[in-house]
Amino acid sequence: MPLSAMMKPSPKSRLEPVPLLAFGAHPDDIEFGCGGVIAKETRSGRAAHFVICSRGEAASQGTPKQRVAEAKKSAAFLGATVEFVELDGDAHLEVRTVHAIKLAGIIRRVRPGAVLAPSLVENQHPDHSKLGHLVRDACRLARYGGIKELRRAPGHAIEQLFYYAVTSEAEPANITPVLIDVSTPNVLKAWTSAMEAHASQISARNYVELQLTRARLRGLRAGSSHAIALFPNDPLVLDLLATVSRGARRF
Amino acid sequence: MPLSAMMKPSPKSRLEPVPLLAFGAHPDDIEFGCGGVIAKETRSGRAAHFVICSRGEAASQGTPKQRVAEAKKSAAFLGATVEFVELDGDAHLEVRTVHAIKLAGIIRRVRPGAVLAPSLVENQHPDHSKLGHLVRDACRLARYGGIKELRRAPGHAIEQLFYYAVTSEAEPANITPVLIDVSTPNVLKAWTSAMEAHASQISARNYVELQLTRARLRGLRAGSSHAIALFPNDPLVLDLLATVSRGARRF
Amino acid sequence: MPLSAMMKPSPKSRLEPVPLLAFGAHPDDIEFGCGGVIAKETRSGRAAHFVICSRGEAASQGTPKQRVAEAKKSAAFLGATVEFVELDGDAHLEVRTVHAIKLAGIIRRVRPGAVLAPSLVENQHPDHSKLGHLVRDACRLARYGGIKELRRAPGHAIEQLFYYAVTSEAEPANITPVLIDVSTPNVLKAWTSAMEAHASQISARNYVELQLTRARLRGLRAGSSHAIALFPNDPLVLDLLATVSRGARRF
Amino acid sequence: MPLSAMMKPSPKSRLEPVPLLAFGAHPDDIEFGCGGVIAKETRSGRAAHFVICSRGEAASQGTPKQRVAEAKKSAAFLGATVEFVELDGDAHLEVRTVHAIKLAGIIRRVRPGAVLAPSLVENQHPDHSKLGHLVRDACRLARYGGIKELRRAPGHAIEQLFYYAVTSEAEPANITPVLIDVSTPNVLKAWTSAMEAHASQISARNYVELQLTRARLRGLRAGSSHAIALFPNDPLVLDLLATVSRGARRF
Amino acid sequence: MPLSAMMKPSPKSRLEPVPLLAFGAHPDDIEFGCGGVIAKETRSGRAAHFVICSRGEAASQGTPKQRVAEAKKSAAFLGATVEFVELDGDAHLEVRTVHAIKLAGIIRRVRPGAVLAPSLVENQHPDHSKLGHLVRDACRLARYGGIKELRRAPGHAIEQLFYYAVTSEAEPANITPVLIDVSTPNVLKAWTSAMEAHASQISARNYVELQLTRARLRGLRAGSSHAIALFPNDPLVLDLLATVSRGARRF
Amino acid sequence: MPLSAMMKPSPKSRLEPVPLLAFGAHPDDIEFGCGGVIAKETRSGRAAHFVICSRGEAASQGTPKQRVAEAKKSAAFLGATVEFVELDGDAHLEVRTVHAIKLAGIIRRVRPGAVLAPSLVENQHPDHSKLGHLVRDACRLARYGGIKELRRAPGHAIEQLFYYAVTSEAEPANITPVLIDVSTPNVLKAWTSAMEAHASQISARNYVELQLTRARLRGLRAGSSHAIALFPNDPLVLDLLATVSRGARRF
Repeated sequence: MPLSAMMKPSPKSRLEPVPLLAFGAHPDDIEFGCGGVIAKETRSGRAAHFVICSRGEAASQGTPKQRVAEAKKSAAFLGATVEFVELDGDAHLEVRTVHAIKLAGIIRRVRPGAVLAPSLVENQHPDHSKLGHLVRDACRLARYGGIKELRRAPGHAIEQLFYYAVTSEAEPANITPVLIDVSTPNVLKAWTSAMEAHASQISARNYVELQLTRARLRGLRAGSSHAIALFPNDPLVLDLLATVSRGARRF
Repeated sequence: MPLSAMMKPSPKSRLEPVPLLAFGAHPDDIEFGCGGVIAKETRSGRAAHFVICSRGEAASQGTPKQRVAEAKKSAAFLGATVEFVELDGDAHLEVRTVHAIKLAGIIRRVRPGAVLAPSLVENQHPDHSKLGHLVRDACRLARYGGIKELRRAPGHAIEQLFYYAVTSEAEPANITPVLIDVSTPNVLKAWTSAMEAHASQISARNYVELQLTRARLRGLRAGSSHAIALFPNDPLVLDLLATVSRGARRF
Repeated sequence: MPLSAMMKPSPKSRLEPVPLLAFGAHPDDIEFGCGGVIAKETRSGRAAHFVICSRGEAASQGTPKQRVAEAKKSAAFLGATVEFVELDGDAHLEVRTVHAIKLAGIIRRVRPGAVLAPSLVENQHPDHSKLGHLVRDACRLARYGGIKELRRAPGHAIEQLFYYAVTSEAEPANITPVLIDVSTPNVLKAWTSAMEAHASQISARNYVELQLTRARLRGLRAGSSHAIALFPNDPLVLDLLATVSRGARRF
Repeated sequence: MPLSAMMKPSPKSRLEPVPLLAFGAHPDDIEFGCGGVIAKETRSGRAAHFVICSRGEAASQGTPKQRVAEAKKSAAFLGATVEFVELDGDAHLEVRTVHAIKLAGIIRRVRPGAVLAPSLVENQHPDHSKLGHLVRDACRLARYGGIKELRRAPGHAIEQLFYYAVTSEAEPANITPVLIDVSTPNVLKAWTSAMEAHASQISARNYVELQLTRARLRGLRAGSSHAIALFPNDPLVLDLLATVSRGARRF
Repeated sequence: MPLSAMMKPSPKSRLEPVPLLAFGAHPDDIEFGCGGVIAKETRSGRAAHFVICSRGEAASQGTPKQRVAEAKKSAAFLGATVEFVELDGDAHLEVRTVHAIKLAGIIRRVRPGAVLAPSLVENQHPDHSKLGHLVRDACRLARYGGIKELRRAPGHAIEQLFYYAVTSEAEPANITPVLIDVSTPNVLKAWTSAMEAHASQISARNYVELQLTRARLRGLRAGSSHAIALFPNDPLVLDLLATVSRGARRF
Repeated sequence: MPLSAMMKPSPKSRLEPVPLLAFGAHPDDIEFGCGGVIAKETRSGRAAHFVICSRGEAASQGTPKQRVAEAKKSAAFLGATVEFVELDGDAHLEVRTVHAIKLAGIIRRVRPGAVLAPSLVENQHPDHSKLGHLVRDACRLARYGGIKELRRAPGHAIEQLFYYAVTSEAEPANITPVLIDVSTPNVLKAWTSAMEAHASQISARNYVELQLTRARLRGLRAGSSHAIALFPNDPLVLDLLATVSRGARRF
């Protein structure tokens, strides 16, 4: 799906959902943190776009060139488009207003419904929580009318910001998660392929097993095979309780 | 809708939602705490049943007989059926297993999807949080196969338990709420009528204003006229993010 | 009341309270967040001074010139003096030591007793929590003797720092608030006029209603008509319990 | 001061404060937990009454008879009257409605302004937190009009419920404390004498040193010699900020 | 190892550790919650004793007789002795002082160093958290000298109380866990056998997989194959940091 | 002990522990916050090294030259080596990636086991929590292979990061501490001497008494004379529970 198509949502039609926009600090964060959710959404007909804020140049393994290639291959498995944006570089990210405004500009261009960002929990790779802060602020700035740097595109209010957690330790303790059921075999397969596409990263550590184990544990709770937790930044607004008729109450 | 109809849910059909079951410690708690949600759900075709665990005999105003009459009138405004159950009496409730099992028996009889109960926050009328604890445990016991006292009816697993808060102070700080939009004029009207039906209670205090003010404040946040917060006991399980495409992000 | 009078507090006399100093990120934040408290304090004879850290130039409505004029008119309704200070500009504020020192310099000049600042809760306009952090640090730096940039004025230790919350979502969950009773008719009237003075801001949104609704809800709890919550940064020190002989226990 | 005098408060007069009522699970809990506050209040002219809910019969040292004698001697040092009430016995206390109603009856008789109770933190002597729960509920029940067992005396709404902590571990982490300055030499002396009056208890452990050390640490924070933390059950309601013009900001 | 041997610890010798005492509400709780820890400890030469507080008579599968037989077989795999104690029966447990005293009597008899109990988190099987509360209180009561019912045996102060969590949802969020490395193959094998010994319970649900998945996820964090989290009731006291020279910092 | 010795740890030998590395924002922070722990560790044969990130030039008392001299004298009492590093200057510290990388370089050079840093609690001197953040991030960056600025030294993974709290208010409420017993007379004496070596700081305030009072209060809890609390950044990983056989359960 070309990006141009994605940029013209028709919000009047409820049947065609507005795109999903996911931010990652490094080339593999989105896939490891919530790749199954992306696969589930794109397979239901929703467009997804990735914005990756470094080329992984500070990692112990993999060159930036390799990392970019892996990210593109991985996004393809998930049915997502991908772009790279330069902020301060891998392991050097800082929370600066100029970055938040840059990301807000992307939000105005893509005009997403849901936005995904790494969680704000600080005891993880420093780039993760810093990017989470930047995206949260960017979602607000995208809405405000008077910011000069953003005047090229009209303001845009997203529907909801969800945080993903790259590891168990990055799961925020103060937000009740929603669990997304990712048990469909082709979804699980696409997610696994997407993670394995980051070949330079998975040789040394058990990243793929870690994520599938986490999802299996959530799935056992949710009464399905595998599930992924997302953490909403703001309360969900519902019309009817029937919309959320499943709860995680298996044990 | 007669209660008999409500007790024969056809869970195979997703189109006919299983009933809603709400528990209240006193004759007016459900209405003041989440009456708008009840009105919204019944107007969408869902059955609702109230279980009231005292006759309000310890209140400063109103006789038990008046309170029961008011509760029946109020439930009618909300389209709900109502029954009374004897536990320890108003202002005398204790957390006893025998009570939890009695409520579990009702759950097995009504076989609801969603269950509503007063929140577990302790700094409110002591009966409220105690009933919340009893209902939470009852939802588990209703599922277990070997409890002798419950053998008359087959086990039943509810979909989700939501807590309502009779006052702002009773809102749990550690659960991210979902906001139910109750802005439809006939929903608001039914809710107001249901609260005003408790004539013995609203003479001395500003209970109706309190609840409409709370809902207005939530509505301003949710981008609608009025909304009511419910607090899920367990994470929601979703198939797609599009199910929850509204977030409370207006200010 | 001229500012010069305010800068010569006579701390020896308990009868003439030292001034109140309130910081706002935008021209209307103080008024919407805690204007009723300001009106109550100035009507009791206490001086109040506002420091506004942008001209609202990133807002969707209103020019900087309009915003400044509105702020001056609004402060007059509340009996407060007002000054503007340049930091990074609206929607561009960052937490920099140079800003904290600049604000500490103002604290040394005004020599306030109580200081008011926006809350530290991060899920609001980014400028709000960033200014809250800066003011908290500024209150400490104002006290330290060796900071070169501040040597023009002697060190000053404030009595207490209170946070105000511009919206319900900005109320810190981890601090027990104090509720200030703002029910006096002339206080409520001055507060409402001060909010309405921000004419460019209140046309599009229900800001005034939002704040009066919040205060009404607090008032119902406090047993009065309207009340505003402030959140102390440090525990209050009391000589006798009789000083705080009212508690919010109405429901 | 005779108890009879204490039971006739004249609430119309602000100058004569309504009495202070303190509950303790064992004969020495009030003294060790907040004896300095009691001494401060009675020396300012306020009446104080102690309700002790066991005779310490499960302690490792001291007979019930000794414990009662020590408690009376200790209360005299603090200027307080004292009564004993039978609930389930030392180390056997349970949270029963019948107990809460019995304590509510005492509240209706004494008609206090402030009430003091052990904190709700559970990781301490089990009787402490259970009594805290009973007192909190009793304060509510004392207000309700329709409780048959309480009809002998008219309903009474207290002003505020404060929790005291017998040890550092019993201090609630989720309530911002108020610090009461107990630095006056005669207050400190009376408190020390009151603790030492529990001769059977202080032989084996460093209880007196523990409490003076805690108060010294709080005093260093509060900018005084010694201070004791109390934890309000509900937000304080203030007329003016000047009422609370000291904050604990020394380090 | 006979129980009689276990009851005569020689606390003077640091080389022979005092026994481990684990409490379970149902015949399989200890094994599923922390069986790997038990296997690790007994294989290092420490005695372990299980106290099981029901015969699982309310479960959906398995008769009480089967459950007892399975528990004995399972304990043998773990090298632990086992006894059953009658409280209120499966799914009927209540927090009563008489139960806490009964458990305190067992503590005085066994005289353990470490005690293991189900966590206090309430949103799980109601018996679990209730037993956790009872054990916590029992550990205190075992120490007090004056409790008549306990006079047969001298008081005993345990070293530390640790909570185990039967499911992920039962892990307390407010306690920093310690992770016990259970990667040794014979430890993992003994634990798996012990869980599989509960044949009546594991047919219908994925209990064994759930626990091994949880331990694998912890192991990935701890830099080992498998680990189990325990949650100390009180801070650990150390002589030197070298004692705790491993931290869970792998991702 | 020369620094060169410290930089060649022999990790294979468990008997010779790897060095302890402590970071302080000002010349006296380490001593006041956890000096007793340092004395205990060095007296057991472990090397300790201090990195001090300013010369205290913003303090009310003492010149930078005096402060450096005092720090050296103080470190000698504790058996630690000391170095000074320039970041932004006293009272001017900011959280910048360049600082975290500089500290990561020191970690790679010293190659410590345990690292000590000021706590992350924000309501203290702003430099303290900022340095805590920088050290936490530095511990991660020291491990990553691809950071260009750090390529001179091989990556190093520390064992554990512990936070110390310079005042009671700086103790993190969300981490269960470990208590280090510092009761040995020569440890207490060395610690006191080290604090008193900061002669310019202790003249005006009761810093030494504050710290000894805090340690005495912890000691009373831990069943010893004095103890100091440290707060681990990550869960401890243990082989056996016997390693941590003391718990703080005295009251």
